[in-house]
Amino acid sequence: MKQILSAWESQCESSRALRFVDVNLRGIGQVMFQDNPLTGAFFLAAICWGSYAGGAPLIAVGGVVALVVATLTAQWLRVDANALRAGLYGYNGVLVGLALATFIAPGPMLWAYLVLGAAVSVIVMLGTANLVKPWGMSALTFPFVLTTWLLLLATYGFWGLAGEALPAAAVVTPFEPAAAPELGLTDFVQGVLHSVSQVFLKGSGVSALLLLAGLAVNSREAAAFALGGAILAVITAHLFGAESDLIIGGLLGFSPVLTAIALGTVFYPPGARVAAYAALGTVFTVVAQAALNVALTPLAIPALTAPFVLVSWLFLLPRQCLERADAPTSDS
Amino acid sequence: MKQILSAWESQCESSRALRFVDVNLRGIGQVMFQDNPLTGAFFLAAICWGSYAGGAPLIAVGGVVALVVATLTAQWLRVDANALRAGLYGYNGVLVGLALATFIAPGPMLWAYLVLGAAVSVIVMLGTANLVKPWGMSALTFPFVLTTWLLLLATYGFWGLAGEALPAAAVVTPFEPAAAPELGLTDFVQGVLHSVSQVFLKGSGVSALLLLAGLAVNSREAAAFALGGAILAVITAHLFGAESDLIIGGLLGFSPVLTAIALGTVFYPPGARVAAYAALGTVFTVVAQAALNVALTPLAIPALTAPFVLVSWLFLLPRQCLERADAPTSDS
Amino acid sequence: MKQILSAWESQCESSRALRFVDVNLRGIGQVMFQDNPLTGAFFLAAICWGSYAGGAPLIAVGGVVALVVATLTAQWLRVDANALRAGLYGYNGVLVGLALATFIAPGPMLWAYLVLGAAVSVIVMLGTANLVKPWGMSALTFPFVLTTWLLLLATYGFWGLAGEALPAAAVVTPFEPAAAPELGLTDFVQGVLHSVSQVFLKGSGVSALLLLAGLAVNSREAAAFALGGAILAVITAHLFGAESDLIIGGLLGFSPVLTAIALGTVFYPPGARVAAYAALGTVFTVVAQAALNVALTPLAIPALTAPFVLVSWLFLLPRQCLERADAPTSDS
Repeated sequence: MKQILSAWESQCESSRALRFVDVNLRGIGQVMFQDNPLTGAFFLAAICWGSYAGGAPLIAVGGVVALVVATLTAQWLRVDANALRAGLYGYNGVLVGLALATFIAPGPMLWAYLVLGAAVSVIVMLGTANLVKPWGMSALTFPFVLTTWLLLLATYGFWGLAGEALPAAAVVTPFEPAAAPELGLTDFVQGVLHSVSQVFLKGSGVSALLLLAGLAVNSREAAAFALGGAILAVITAHLFGAESDLIIGGLLGFSPVLTAIALGTVFYPPGARVAAYAALGTVFTVVAQAALNVALTPLAIPALTAPFVLVSWLFLLPRQCLERADAPTSDS
Repeated sequence: MKQILSAWESQCESSRALRFVDVNLRGIGQVMFQDNPLTGAFFLAAICWGSYAGGAPLIAVGGVVALVVATLTAQWLRVDANALRAGLYGYNGVLVGLALATFIAPGPMLWAYLVLGAAVSVIVMLGTANLVKPWGMSALTFPFVLTTWLLLLATYGFWGLAGEALPAAAVVTPFEPAAAPELGLTDFVQGVLHSVSQVFLKGSGVSALLLLAGLAVNSREAAAFALGGAILAVITAHLFGAESDLIIGGLLGFSPVLTAIALGTVFYPPGARVAAYAALGTVFTVVAQAALNVALTPLAIPALTAPFVLVSWLFLLPRQCLERADAPTSDS
Repeated sequence: MKQILSAWESQCESSRALRFVDVNLRGIGQVMFQDNPLTGAFFLAAICWGSYAGGAPLIAVGGVVALVVATLTAQWLRVDANALRAGLYGYNGVLVGLALATFIAPGPMLWAYLVLGAAVSVIVMLGTANLVKPWGMSALTFPFVLTTWLLLLATYGFWGLAGEALPAAAVVTPFEPAAAPELGLTDFVQGVLHSVSQVFLKGSGVSALLLLAGLAVNSREAAAFALGGAILAVITAHLFGAESDLIIGGLLGFSPVLTAIALGTVFYPPGARVAAYAALGTVFTVVAQAALNVALTPLAIPALTAPFVLVSWLFLLPRQCLERADAPTSDS
């Protein structure tokens, strides 16, 4: 694997076109924190399969177009070259593209909207990175969430953009099924896999396996925490009595999957204490997902990965307690 | 009084169990900014009386369980020892416990939820303290508000948790009584006392007197500002024409009470100018309370102490103008 | 022009009363970033004409009263003398006064409310300036927006304050006209002019011309960017298919006008790259305006200049990329 990557890297050194491909593939990989073009290729395959199998191949096209626009915008803005090469200015763009193409009906205005959103996502990325830098934190997918929320909300005021797949506005009411929600083994497995694939807005078992493979080629821990986070999220949601359709569709699990990877493998040194901390964050992300689903009901827009961003920021702010993982306890 | 406290303190030095009790009592006292176990004991009595008189003794149990869980979580996270001993990792926990036990119907899932919320409140406390540190500010009760809001919102998505005492979602409409709202002397006194006791989510005159006594044993100014803030809040709310039931129940006054104590006695040097500044903040907290009550109507959750946090942060940010209280005026 | 101003300035040096007038005129000018009493005089004329022509002269009185209260509050708080003289503690006050007098029915409580809001706007201004200082940003009109939102929301809970001109709460639904919205030349010109005058909450062509003249006496670029921003906003809103009534009334254009002035002439060095950046920001402010209009529908309050503040902050945070405007590109 290492040989393939170093051969690819030396090819990129001498070709501007290949470097551009490399940067964009890394951009896709960074959605799950992986700075690796091979991971990005696996993820791209997952996106394409999910779009094709779901009967909406245009969604994958939207994601790729937005990714390229975001990378070009970052070049025009003369961002930091190392961050650009690591794909840090692409991951929000690809998500903006996938989300807009998923929720808005196709048409010429969609593509104008998508280009606008991809370009703005880079500016919001630069801004958010500056904003959270004093606390040693990363922007995560906040630029994707904020940019997409504004664009989706605005469709309700624009005749040229039809948010056909958006949820309808509704009054907040408790979820009260006729009987206690049930979850069989098949449902459980589906829920776990879809929790992984919904990170890219897809409900597809094959896509989930491609994503886990893409994680594993760069970091086995990341793959393990993604899978573990999905399992924990499905169990938590079921125990609290969430709607089974949401659980099986992976719609309560994709944010917890990202929280598990971020807290467990990216920002803190590995260890049992950090794993327990990441598990607590993963469980609480399920609560935050349910909470934001409710809070956004009157606004008729989806929560996207906002629960992941919120909980991860909350759990990353108290760094000083987690980084000195082997320090003595306060009462010793 | 001082002798009792120093005797207690020396007992705590030699007993880990007593120290644990001491830290938890201080945690209750910190809800109103008092680092004093005797104040905490008075406050605990107020909570117990309010719960018992209100026919819901389980609420006091919820508060105490959450307090202990929060303190244990803080120990596990190896937080700063001095801050832990001052009770700074307990006050959000006890409020989370009281609020969850007040708004959610009893049952096994409530207790799981309460333990989760208490643990997370400590992490949010650590994070918020880091977040506002560059501006020399404190976390106030923001960790309680954020954690509880997410947990309460999520109940609408979970079959296992019934938010029975939560307000129903409604459309925002102006408050238009048949006649101008009236407020007799008994109503006025009740409104003032309940404004104090609602800091701990109780509408009880006896609890209010216990709270004022608890404040007075540590700081007479704090007790005076609490009472003065409650009086000012009731008068302001009535002059603007707020609903009399809300005023009498103390539901527009508990946030102003906290603002009055914070701005008048905790963060700024005492004096006439600071007192006027605190009065302005207290009056504006009544507006913020009414505003947040309206803003949260579609989401069917209570404002909790968010108005206090918002206004106090706004009034604490311009520190430079208030700290040099005897500096010459800008136009001299 | 320069002679008049220096004569005026020397008069102000020797008269406290004239200095007070000067500071307040600059306060009005700072609504559009101009530190110039003559600009302020033009703007005041625009306000007075707009109020008189609209049959509501009390609105102009409200604006002036709030402006004076804000300036006096700033003096009492002993704010930085240079910032005070530049009018930085007046512009939020005048906007608070205009907005409250526009949306709330006249009566004694309106004036109490207006004095409260003007005083608090100064404290929020001081606080916001401190809050965003670490990122080298300005408070913009955030203090006006936050203070006014809280005051307007609270009217729904107060019998004494009738928010007669506030929008009614409604469920979020897509805008679906019978036919594609049309926009003739007269409509276009009206939309452009009203986009300028709505910065001061007025829909008046004469006021718009007075405002553009006031800008031009201090900065021709500011006038050009204001006009260009208005044109770009009207075109963008129409292409996306926004409601023609909103476009013609200037209600989708006033925030973009402010974004164009801020990004194009105030905070970045002039040049083609910054102009393109400002144009992108202006277009995205139209989206943000439509989005916030939707998001605030359930709360029954107007967006005010929040879209301008949000987008300008987002576009000001990545300063490092725009300030070294002639630096080499990242891939060279």
